[in-house]
Amino acid sequence: MGGKQYLLTPGPTPVPPQVLAALAEPIVHHRSPDFRPVYESCLTRLRDVCRTSQEVLMFASSGTGAFESAVQNLVTRGERHLVVSAGNFGERWASLTKAYGAEVDHLQYAWGETPDADDVRARLRERDAKAVWIVHSETSTGVVSDIQSLAAAAKEQGALVVVDAVSSLGAVPCETDAWGLDVVVSGSQKALMTPPGLGICAVSESAYAATGDTPRFYFDWERTRKAQQKFDAAFTPPVSLVAALDVALGLLLDEGLDTVFERHVRLGRAARAGAKAMGLELFSPDEDRSAVVTAVHAPDGVNADDIVKILRDKHGITIASGQGDWKGKIFRLGHIGFFDVFDITTALAAVELTLAELGADIERGVAVTAALEAYEHTQVA
Amino acid sequence: MGGKQYLLTPGPTPVPPQVLAALAEPIVHHRSPDFRPVYESCLTRLRDVCRTSQEVLMFASSGTGAFESAVQNLVTRGERHLVVSAGNFGERWASLTKAYGAEVDHLQYAWGETPDADDVRARLRERDAKAVWIVHSETSTGVVSDIQSLAAAAKEQGALVVVDAVSSLGAVPCETDAWGLDVVVSGSQKALMTPPGLGICAVSESAYAATGDTPRFYFDWERTRKAQQKFDAAFTPPVSLVAALDVALGLLLDEGLDTVFERHVRLGRAARAGAKAMGLELFSPDEDRSAVVTAVHAPDGVNADDIVKILRDKHGITIASGQGDWKGKIFRLGHIGFFDVFDITTALAAVELTLAELGADIERGVAVTAALEAYEHTQVA
Repeated sequence: MGGKQYLLTPGPTPVPPQVLAALAEPIVHHRSPDFRPVYESCLTRLRDVCRTSQEVLMFASSGTGAFESAVQNLVTRGERHLVVSAGNFGERWASLTKAYGAEVDHLQYAWGETPDADDVRARLRERDAKAVWIVHSETSTGVVSDIQSLAAAAKEQGALVVVDAVSSLGAVPCETDAWGLDVVVSGSQKALMTPPGLGICAVSESAYAATGDTPRFYFDWERTRKAQQKFDAAFTPPVSLVAALDVALGLLLDEGLDTVFERHVRLGRAARAGAKAMGLELFSPDEDRSAVVTAVHAPDGVNADDIVKILRDKHGITIASGQGDWKGKIFRLGHIGFFDVFDITTALAAVELTLAELGADIERGVAVTAALEAYEHTQVA
Repeated sequence: MGGKQYLLTPGPTPVPPQVLAALAEPIVHHRSPDFRPVYESCLTRLRDVCRTSQEVLMFASSGTGAFESAVQNLVTRGERHLVVSAGNFGERWASLTKAYGAEVDHLQYAWGETPDADDVRARLRERDAKAVWIVHSETSTGVVSDIQSLAAAAKEQGALVVVDAVSSLGAVPCETDAWGLDVVVSGSQKALMTPPGLGICAVSESAYAATGDTPRFYFDWERTRKAQQKFDAAFTPPVSLVAALDVALGLLLDEGLDTVFERHVRLGRAARAGAKAMGLELFSPDEDRSAVVTAVHAPDGVNADDIVKILRDKHGITIASGQGDWKGKIFRLGHIGFFDVFDITTALAAVELTLAELGADIERGVAVTAALEAYEHTQVA
């Protein structure tokens, strides 16, 4: 092939050149003065991005690893926990909490539905739970839930709130302290514009106070917190990824989180306007909050995986298929992190060409035009 | 400072420029044809380096994380396990197995001693154990144990053998299959010449058959094995680190493992000859097997940490202090992975200058000369 390549999957996401350059720096020792200032800067910036005054714990792991830290620290066999799911990742968290012996009350929505705070409130009134486990951005469907109201419902009933913010942190607002989120889990490879390999976890004092005695060592919160407070790491950290994340967080904070969030809202609008202009039906909601992933139904009679394959093989554009039952039925454009409107118009232009190739009657440029108009003309509240 | 920097810590270790360049490549999606061949190549090369026909499991984690996978999969609360320790890392594994409820029989040597197969045999005759946990290269002391005879003693008594090969794999021989090692744990950041962030774990069929029901998900061996056998990953892998490791393993295998092992033996001889020529007393054994880290006593009246600090601040050379009770008493030169004899002579030359500065009467060039002679003239059996 050898042509230009474009990555529009919902994670890993494209990494800015400055961040890639940081990865190629010579290795430094993690307990030396070469690394400590980088570590301190990265941990401080993580607190800013998470909007918390708490220590944000950092693990060498994927997002699932960081999520498992929450399970190992908070779940004791036989305790009741409420897991809210509406897609692949929510269902994974139900499996994970069950694997640790939680008595899981599973508030399970169909994929693509948006969890409702009243449902959480009603469930907790029926049966209390130590913690409510919720997904902020369900990467498999493109739905971003209203985590503020879901968390408020959980807090009313005295439950801890654990949030999967893997694909949302740094793309859409996530006010850890202001919304009373006890645990916020994320990863380096989505809106934080860094390669995969770092899991993060913001933990409230209430959550530390609620930890149980399930065996753990590597993912033990207290051990990691104590080490980080001395700007030391409990175990050898991935120094290159930490240095890269520090650069990426600097870019994010220099742009300004509010500006970043507005950019994602407008990118989402552009992607949805483009899809609709081609006559396609959206799978993810047509609303500003769902600004992370745009999931789109394939036209009748077309396998979504064929769209994904042609985009990739012919146009150098990598997007994602549907997961689970939606494989072959939807395709997903990620626009998380290092994206501007031209990435969206590029992807949409290629979708136009691809659909035409698959026999659809599409006026050329229609999606690109609609996307540009949506991006340019609409205001963000 | 701005001068040239030299990294001689026993991990993380220097990373070759080709490997750094791989880290700076654009991100690819882990389930795309851009990544699968890299993943397959890396997993295949790992088997070659581990000298095993088994799948080598790969985790986004530090070495401790990969070690914890062995504990989570093999230890069930109340079972008897024999942990052999003679330094910081052996003692960590005793803590880790205890954290998971193992009834630990701890064969604990003083730091710097070399574990003996007869002691293991005697302990197991007194009281059997499901597994024996041993450290191949104890990074805190520089001792490389005779893992082949230790493993043989354990197998005689019907125990599984779990080996911490974090700082040894790729530096000194570790014959996973031929020596009957059931679990071999390592990490990317030592002799594998890659930044930290990847933990690996070779697992025998006997070990899979002995797994218990301790809760686990992220570090579950079976889940990871099944996914890897399809050249897929159970969770988003650190694609950049995997690509880098693949390049590094290629360098290692191109040089030839036996040549690499011989180089490490000669580097160890050179480092020890240099230290002795300065009249310093070795802490690590003066034997070919201990070719990973050279630990040296500071001269009487000199704090080893002052040597480390001057080497660093004045000469740009980062080495390691002693750990635990040996802090301030010994210093450690790592020569693991991307090293040749000129790295050793550089470090020794700087130690000469530093000791002179601290008031020692040292003939200039004596360590460098002895190191070159040891490297050049001695044959490896």
